[in-house]
Amino acid sequence: MKFSPLFWPIELRGNTIYILDETLLPHKVKYIKAKNYREAIKAIKDMKTRAVGQVILVFYIFLMAIKKNKNKKDIKPVLFELAEIVNCARPTLSFKYLTDMILGWAVSGAPLEESILGFLEVLKNKRIEQARAMSERLNDGDSILTHCNISGQMPLVGVFARKANKKIKFFATETRPYLQGSRLTAWELQKFGFDVTLISDNMAAQVMYEKKINKVIVGADHLAQNGDIANKIGTYQIAILAKHFNIPFYVLCPPPSHAKTGKDIAIEVRPEGELLEYQGVKLAPKGAKGYYPAFDVTPNNLITEHNYLEINRD
Amino acid sequence: MKFSPLFWPIELRGNTIYILDETLLPHKVKYIKAKNYREAIKAIKDMKTRAVGQVILVFYIFLMAIKKNKNKKDIKPVLFELAEIVNCARPTLSFKYLTDMILGWAVSGAPLEESILGFLEVLKNKRIEQARAMSERLNDGDSILTHCNISGQMPLVGVFARKANKKIKFFATETRPYLQGSRLTAWELQKFGFDVTLISDNMAAQVMYEKKINKVIVGADHLAQNGDIANKIGTYQIAILAKHFNIPFYVLCPPPSHAKTGKDIAIEVRPEGELLEYQGVKLAPKGAKGYYPAFDVTPNNLITEHNYLEINRD
Repeated sequence: MKFSPLFWPIELRGNTIYILDETLLPHKVKYIKAKNYREAIKAIKDMKTRAVGQVILVFYIFLMAIKKNKNKKDIKPVLFELAEIVNCARPTLSFKYLTDMILGWAVSGAPLEESILGFLEVLKNKRIEQARAMSERLNDGDSILTHCNISGQMPLVGVFARKANKKIKFFATETRPYLQGSRLTAWELQKFGFDVTLISDNMAAQVMYEKKINKVIVGADHLAQNGDIANKIGTYQIAILAKHFNIPFYVLCPPPSHAKTGKDIAIEVRPEGELLEYQGVKLAPKGAKGYYPAFDVTPNNLITEHNYLEINRD
Repeated sequence: MKFSPLFWPIELRGNTIYILDETLLPHKVKYIKAKNYREAIKAIKDMKTRAVGQVILVFYIFLMAIKKNKNKKDIKPVLFELAEIVNCARPTLSFKYLTDMILGWAVSGAPLEESILGFLEVLKNKRIEQARAMSERLNDGDSILTHCNISGQMPLVGVFARKANKKIKFFATETRPYLQGSRLTAWELQKFGFDVTLISDNMAAQVMYEKKINKVIVGADHLAQNGDIANKIGTYQIAILAKHFNIPFYVLCPPPSHAKTGKDIAIEVRPEGELLEYQGVKLAPKGAKGYYPAFDVTPNNLITEHNYLEINRD
């Protein structure tokens, strides 16, 4: 099976973590070499990697620490300290949920390297299964609107649909300001030979009105226990529009976190500079003010179906 | 009274039309010199000028033709031919509505230069009055979301509100792909000392949800007889969102055209290149496909109040 480079954007080789630099895509496929947890966490903060990349990276950060501290009698204090740091990397994805898993293994005395590698293997397989399950909801001739980037799962959904002789096509919002839609989603869907059309974020209602799309599929960075999801800014308004036009709205979700509802999920506000400038080109007048909430919460009642990633964290 | 340069972006001096090049804003305030109607129409097609700039320019194109053909016994054939060309400049704004006015004057034997200059004077005064009337709907403390650019009327609304001791602030969508919100609206509001915050087009629902804004004001390129409006792409979805969040949605409109409903208004589709590249920076992978409808139609039932430009075309 072939995957998008975004499906598994992190590798650990020896004592170096290789991180696909998503800020350089689609023009360059280049990996950052992180030699320690500081460099790895910086890659998260700078959005060099995002979405599932962050999840995989957390496990490799711990794996690296475990390898480096192999001779310590008790590694737990190292891991607890590292968890504190990792948890603060970015607010909206639940890093604590991930580090709690690892600390749980450490406390229970489970073999740490095996637990981490085993978990990553399960994660990979469950994500493939999640894409396959999603593809079953699709019909021949469907046209799917997607937003941001679901870390390589969208081409997989398409590949499974293609195997079942369903012809589907895609519309992708460009997803300002980081342009995940243009730079990542359109790029990976093109690589797999799918028909994909980019629109700017303000065209979603129009393509719905013109019936150019008939389903919406998005990912989620965070799933609360009541079914609310947090995902890239703009997801919420697409869900409201889909409801208005009576278009099914599907979400590929991680497992539910500790958050009871969407109100318990912190929304990251990023520096306004990322909105007012792009690749060195000034997009706004000098002294302009911007507001950049990086995520929003889509309430459960706007979601037609959650496609859960079924992973037991224990 | 001081105006934004966008309020009256066209001047005729001698036989040259000076057209504010809105593509260079906010970094440069520069005027294109059009010596003939071809150069002037090219400025419309290339979106060097837009919105009310196009309206004023049409009248100056005819005024220039009238001056150049002063010695012709019957100027009507020249004007009818010119109208045919002007009507095709861009589809969504009703150029025919404007050229029909001028041809009407020509056929009825009205003094042409005086009619055109008289109309432009009325247009200017009525637009000021329209902004004043809009300001009366505002309350102290209001925070207004706007989209695209209303050709200098937004700062005027603010100035009238300020005179009435109402403190108001603004949120502006950047309005991809042409960035009228960042480049024009934020710029002119800043110049008049207003508090203005830029957001990307996918943040509208979030600022509504967070109650950062409590009113929406947009312009319109076209008003149909049933109250449907055509305006910059993205207006429609903001109207749906405003309805969802129960936020009043105001429109500064031109007079109604010949179109019975929004369905009679042609939606211009512009070249995908304008979406996939910005100022020479590639925003998407090589070979990517884009769809760029430049306008959308907001149905009457989503509009709280139309602020009409009351001009009698006869």
